[in-house]
Amino acid sequence: MGFSTIRLAQDGWSVEILDQTLLPHEFTSVRLTGMAEAAVAIRDMLVRGAPLIGATASYGMALAMRQDPSDANLQDAYDRLLETRPTAVNLRWALDDMMAILKDCPEESREATAYERAAAVVREDEAICLGIGQHGLALIREIHRKKGGTGPVNVLTHCNAGALATCGLGTATAPIYLAKADGIPIHVWVDETRPRNQGAALTAWELGRSGIDHSLIVDNAGGHLMQHGMVDLCIVGTDRTTATGDVCNKIGTYLKALAAQDNGVPFYVALPSTTIDWTVEDGVKEIPIEERAGEEVTRIRGLAEDGSVQTVTLPPLSTRAANYAFDVTPARMVSGLITERGVAPATREGLKALFPEQA
Amino acid sequence: MGFSTIRLAQDGWSVEILDQTLLPHEFTSVRLTGMAEAAVAIRDMLVRGAPLIGATASYGMALAMRQDPSDANLQDAYDRLLETRPTAVNLRWALDDMMAILKDCPEESREATAYERAAAVVREDEAICLGIGQHGLALIREIHRKKGGTGPVNVLTHCNAGALATCGLGTATAPIYLAKADGIPIHVWVDETRPRNQGAALTAWELGRSGIDHSLIVDNAGGHLMQHGMVDLCIVGTDRTTATGDVCNKIGTYLKALAAQDNGVPFYVALPSTTIDWTVEDGVKEIPIEERAGEEVTRIRGLAEDGSVQTVTLPPLSTRAANYAFDVTPARMVSGLITERGVAPATREGLKALFPEQA
Repeated sequence: MGFSTIRLAQDGWSVEILDQTLLPHEFTSVRLTGMAEAAVAIRDMLVRGAPLIGATASYGMALAMRQDPSDANLQDAYDRLLETRPTAVNLRWALDDMMAILKDCPEESREATAYERAAAVVREDEAICLGIGQHGLALIREIHRKKGGTGPVNVLTHCNAGALATCGLGTATAPIYLAKADGIPIHVWVDETRPRNQGAALTAWELGRSGIDHSLIVDNAGGHLMQHGMVDLCIVGTDRTTATGDVCNKIGTYLKALAAQDNGVPFYVALPSTTIDWTVEDGVKEIPIEERAGEEVTRIRGLAEDGSVQTVTLPPLSTRAANYAFDVTPARMVSGLITERGVAPATREGLKALFPEQA
Repeated sequence: MGFSTIRLAQDGWSVEILDQTLLPHEFTSVRLTGMAEAAVAIRDMLVRGAPLIGATASYGMALAMRQDPSDANLQDAYDRLLETRPTAVNLRWALDDMMAILKDCPEESREATAYERAAAVVREDEAICLGIGQHGLALIREIHRKKGGTGPVNVLTHCNAGALATCGLGTATAPIYLAKADGIPIHVWVDETRPRNQGAALTAWELGRSGIDHSLIVDNAGGHLMQHGMVDLCIVGTDRTTATGDVCNKIGTYLKALAAQDNGVPFYVALPSTTIDWTVEDGVKEIPIEERAGEEVTRIRGLAEDGSVQTVTLPPLSTRAANYAFDVTPARMVSGLITERGVAPATREGLKALFPEQA
């Protein structure tokens, strides 16, 4: 990848993370030497993406146990890490997992056990990304074959479901990285993904860093590209998938799915199965959509001419903006769900067949 | 409106235009005292929008005749004004119109004739906007009635087909202004319209200036809003409409039309009949889409914290962007074409019935 989102430092105990708030204009690692620093890294979004947040929280618990392996500190670390991003499901999952392992563990072995478990969390995420990548690679290979093996396979993606959100190859990006490694010529259309510009700032950065041919486009452009045969498939990530295959992802995903459907372009969603919410039936009706501060729409951060990072206001200063963070793409528009176990049809039956233990 | 895009100054001969390049953060009028200044105003996009460009060119010819009504200067003014925006159809139309009137006119009456004709061009555009507004108002009134007369009518618009693009009430905005004047509560969702942000910079500005309730949204948001019943109708403008009702408009229009279709939201296009290209049958296949500089995507201009206007770069400096300026919305997704003569179905027959002279 040419970068690592999280790793144990050379000293064998401190944790190095990539500070993603500075991307794409600055590439800086930060060394976490205690639980409080891990908490700040999560809260201030130096790390982002569900899997990476989970891994950082796990290492935060390990750092806490190195500092003080007492019951009191175990509970304190759990509480303080949990409150950093109250709505992040993976954060709670990682902390509960660590708590379950450590609470019955004698104090003298808590540090070693916690580091071991944190390393395992990272490895498990790497394996999940690889699984998604391999199943997605098969789809790309088939498209490349159908195109007669000539010209690049054009993939459109939205937001950043990339390596930067995980400990491994990413989710939506994993098939892309593996296709490149497999020698398949590939080109990615990168939606800039307003309002937070994760496509422009993060996906463009990581694809560039990894030598993947790509073009940044405005979120408005995908429909035109699909009308003109310039997109072979779409692969996006998801924040939450329903038991019936509806996909809740970054705002604007639904518009791309509509264009894909109208033009016969396959529309795939890549996801670790942990993002499936088996309790939800109807994504549009049941999933509440977070409304965020309007300033995310009206104010844009970028590199100024003088080399400093500046924030500029786009509309009149008095303009009020509405900012819905996600939308729901109905399952009927989803060609398939690329999971670590395989590609499932976006239906209850399809998901059940792949995850029978959830039935 | 609270502003005028173009008007004759108090002195009776110079021409005042609003400098739209400075919007929304600065509101400044510029006085044009000669043909060369009019040419610069068009070339540097101080004025924009087909009708307004036409009117400015007409006044540019009048200013030229005031300076020197000779045949040589008439031809020179025509040539120099025409080269300012070579692809603007209205520009050529306005200049040809003026040339036809002036060329057989004796030199001593050319100035008065040109001023008279320029004023008529402005009045004709005002009348066209008013016609579009009245026919669109009927649609809004009907929706308001169906909603039981309570709550605002929510209109979504894309780009700026507003008063700022015309000499009058605008095209897509005309029904909105008239609805407000008619006492119908109205709220507008304003797509920011990446990459050039005409929604954020211009539509938000003119609606604010005119006291129309509105919310700025990212271009990604419209689908979610329509899924949740938060949009009663869409009204957009068009750069070119085919004889069969396909609509070529700002990139991203097609995505909103898809969402409208999927959610049963009426999708109307407002247009002066001069934008109908009676020679084109299939918009997607026949209309070439302009590809513009990638910097329009990667670089964004706004108001910095220190009050200066700055341009910032969003993605990594090495990122290449693709920038398609328009897309085509197939007629099958268009609920109707709001013209100065009435609302036509987006079909060859519908247009022919309204414009039999073109058949």
